[in-house]
Amino acid sequence: MTKVFDKGVRQATEFRRLNGLFHPRSVAVVGASSNPLSGGYNFTRYLVDYNFKGEIYPVNPNLNEIFGLKVYPSLKAVPEPDIDYVICCVRAERVLKLLDDCYAKNVKLIHLFTARMKETGRDEKAKLEYEILKKAKSLGIRLLGPNCMGIYNPKIGLSFNHDLPRQLGFVGGFFQSGGGAGEFVRYAALRGVRFSKVVSYGNALDIDECELLHYFAQDHETKIIAAYIEGVKDGRKFMDALSYATKRKPVVLLKGGRGKAGSRSTFSHTGSLAGSVEIWRAVLRQCNAVEVYNFQELVDQVVAFSFLPPITGRKVVIAGGGGGKSVISADVWEEEGFQVPDLPLKAREKLRAKFPELWDWLKNPIDVSILQNVETSPMELLRMISETEKFDILVANITEDDPLAKDIWKESLAKDFLDGVLRIKKEGKPIISVIETGEVSLSDMENWKWKTIADVRGSIIREGIPVFSSPDRAAKALRRFIDYWEKFRKR
Amino acid sequence: MTKVFDKGVRQATEFRRLNGLFHPRSVAVVGASSNPLSGGYNFTRYLVDYNFKGEIYPVNPNLNEIFGLKVYPSLKAVPEPDIDYVICCVRAERVLKLLDDCYAKNVKLIHLFTARMKETGRDEKAKLEYEILKKAKSLGIRLLGPNCMGIYNPKIGLSFNHDLPRQLGFVGGFFQSGGGAGEFVRYAALRGVRFSKVVSYGNALDIDECELLHYFAQDHETKIIAAYIEGVKDGRKFMDALSYATKRKPVVLLKGGRGKAGSRSTFSHTGSLAGSVEIWRAVLRQCNAVEVYNFQELVDQVVAFSFLPPITGRKVVIAGGGGGKSVISADVWEEEGFQVPDLPLKAREKLRAKFPELWDWLKNPIDVSILQNVETSPMELLRMISETEKFDILVANITEDDPLAKDIWKESLAKDFLDGVLRIKKEGKPIISVIETGEVSLSDMENWKWKTIADVRGSIIREGIPVFSSPDRAAKALRRFIDYWEKFRKR
Repeated sequence: MTKVFDKGVRQATEFRRLNGLFHPRSVAVVGASSNPLSGGYNFTRYLVDYNFKGEIYPVNPNLNEIFGLKVYPSLKAVPEPDIDYVICCVRAERVLKLLDDCYAKNVKLIHLFTARMKETGRDEKAKLEYEILKKAKSLGIRLLGPNCMGIYNPKIGLSFNHDLPRQLGFVGGFFQSGGGAGEFVRYAALRGVRFSKVVSYGNALDIDECELLHYFAQDHETKIIAAYIEGVKDGRKFMDALSYATKRKPVVLLKGGRGKAGSRSTFSHTGSLAGSVEIWRAVLRQCNAVEVYNFQELVDQVVAFSFLPPITGRKVVIAGGGGGKSVISADVWEEEGFQVPDLPLKAREKLRAKFPELWDWLKNPIDVSILQNVETSPMELLRMISETEKFDILVANITEDDPLAKDIWKESLAKDFLDGVLRIKKEGKPIISVIETGEVSLSDMENWKWKTIADVRGSIIREGIPVFSSPDRAAKALRRFIDYWEKFRKR
Repeated sequence: MTKVFDKGVRQATEFRRLNGLFHPRSVAVVGASSNPLSGGYNFTRYLVDYNFKGEIYPVNPNLNEIFGLKVYPSLKAVPEPDIDYVICCVRAERVLKLLDDCYAKNVKLIHLFTARMKETGRDEKAKLEYEILKKAKSLGIRLLGPNCMGIYNPKIGLSFNHDLPRQLGFVGGFFQSGGGAGEFVRYAALRGVRFSKVVSYGNALDIDECELLHYFAQDHETKIIAAYIEGVKDGRKFMDALSYATKRKPVVLLKGGRGKAGSRSTFSHTGSLAGSVEIWRAVLRQCNAVEVYNFQELVDQVVAFSFLPPITGRKVVIAGGGGGKSVISADVWEEEGFQVPDLPLKAREKLRAKFPELWDWLKNPIDVSILQNVETSPMELLRMISETEKFDILVANITEDDPLAKDIWKESLAKDFLDGVLRIKKEGKPIISVIETGEVSLSDMENWKWKTIADVRGSIIREGIPVFSSPDRAAKALRRFIDYWEKFRKR
């Protein structure tokens, strides 16, 4: 009992410590630069652009000013006694010396954007990495990276890219790829997802996946954890951390380096040993982590967890597509283990009273093409049916093939589709939407049709409804989503 | 020998007959209407909009004029003795009588947009359908449909929707779903695909999948066949037709109604019996047809066949992504059965001479993030490597996560990425590109980044390079593509 209590206290303390590190009151960019191709330029710019809530100290002996900020010749030249956080953009060879300056300024965390260490595959670089770690530890300074983009914390105006959302959200993430982190945030943002913090942690020299799992698991601002991991150093420790996290909130994991070439690449990317994919999978299954296989699936999965309440049933009702789309939707949802049952008796009775010419012909999915000259809409029928019996998921397909003229189509989309979907959402039903905007080139956006679809898409996303680009992507994400909640309840 | 010869002559004759039907010199729209929600309005409009190369005769006793065209009270009132093609938009009950008028005007083919027949599940409707077929046969008139959108033949200005391309191409298709046909054409067009003819054939009362397979197999304007089929009437006949076609050109098939709900839906959609999915699959495999599972895959597959020469090897070299994207690309391509081998010795020697600080670190895939401060670009490296050894596929990933400022990023995309890709293409190498434009809402297109990506995408597509939205979609389409050509060569 005391042991468990001690463990709890220790974990809470560690959380507070890391949380402090992720919320610095002052940041120095060592290696700040006026070269727009450099990290030193861009990290300084992001701090300015995002109105970082604290002091910014660019450091470079050959520069006087950048973005209206005074540039200091060295870290020690900064007049304040304390600097919380250092973004290090100098060469690997200069890091050991920098650590002394950091110690003098009571730096708590260094983000090593600095790369070309262990991942080069060269012995002297691996040795240098190890020396840096040893020295930082002896000085009580924590390290993030090397070879990473650092922290995106929109609450305090810390960002590692120029177009990540400024609004807060509740998805947290940690990524062994900085590019992957940036793309994930940007693509998920298009789907309405917002973030608590996202950490790019590169070579994981000091702060690693286990510590980050514990952190995000305890972070009240984070409700869902997304991660991209190439390798773990200690399998047992990782399993404990993962299990700890998945008992508290969904953890969606993308494992990089599953095959031969991929493993080779994880080493040249972050110096990671990818490990056996079979063991990895067994661990994930046992811990009830949600595994995905590429970045698109990662986004889909986070969208499902973000906008739906826990669901454990698999009964689906689908409406809104033409004949072909309806048939394929039914196939795809069934192939992912869902039931697309025939319409319930009550619904059929209701339909019989209202649409005597159609009632026995209407099926689940509701095929739009048979509704010609009938005074209703697919979303209205979906709503009506959902009132007669509980369905676990309501799927609103958009009919993109409507051969109608511009104004009529626009109006029917706005009134019949959009209003209908939002009404169902307001009634608290678990609705999702499948809208393919098309993979447009710029000139395609001159077409009113693609423009209109993109507009409707935006309206649905703004209302907090999960939107997927195809029935198979929707069904796959929902299957994993439900698998998670089922196991979660049984644990 | 005589038998084979006879069969050949018969097939050629049948082809010419159907080809004549698909190239009418005059079209009557029976049930032409001024109601923009009706088929009678829209089919007339399309003929006008697409500058149909022949005579247009709208028919409706209650209308004098539409789109500047004289409307005739009946088919018989049309002054010309012959009308090749009739688009029938009147109710099912009126079709039997219409057949007499058609006979009087030597009509060769009737497209029955008219629906609510067998697919309603009602006996009297199924009986009516049969009566129509019997009478049409006795009068020597062919039927397309019922319950379909008919013919899209851009060469003569025949279309069943308002935004299908006016340019010609070499993809032919037949679809048991009119909506599916329209969506397929529209989404594939965004990827640069153009069409010879696409036929929506609905309930397949007369002209069916077998006849259409024979037609497209013999059609010199068609190099690739795409089809969406819900059910076939005669399995043996279908297998013969499919085998005949796949020996001549690639046939990509999407089968609708693979599950319980889907089968129920194929009946209410086109009155089709979906049949056993196992038998279906065995037939497809045996005939070397390319099976896909949803409309997006159908588009991906047709894109692969449209823009690549036959390929039978599986050696892939990948460049252009950041670390995470590179690792996941390698994983995904390997998981689809490709080899992503380490760089060939010759390439390594070349790299060593040019980039002494990098050569041993560079791998396949080429990770862009390690190229900082090096005077080259990923596409340049891709080209260089492809010159040292034969790779079967060159994959150009776009790095979307670049944290650079607007102008720099735009310039690097245009110069390093776009120019590089086009240069490789010009050298005749089998290059494909993976570009995710993001699933944008309208307001997202105000973001210069998404706009730029959409612009680059357009430029690549215009040069006839296959573009896919994710590594897994690319790898899946290419796997099936190579499987087809391998089997094709062995037959």
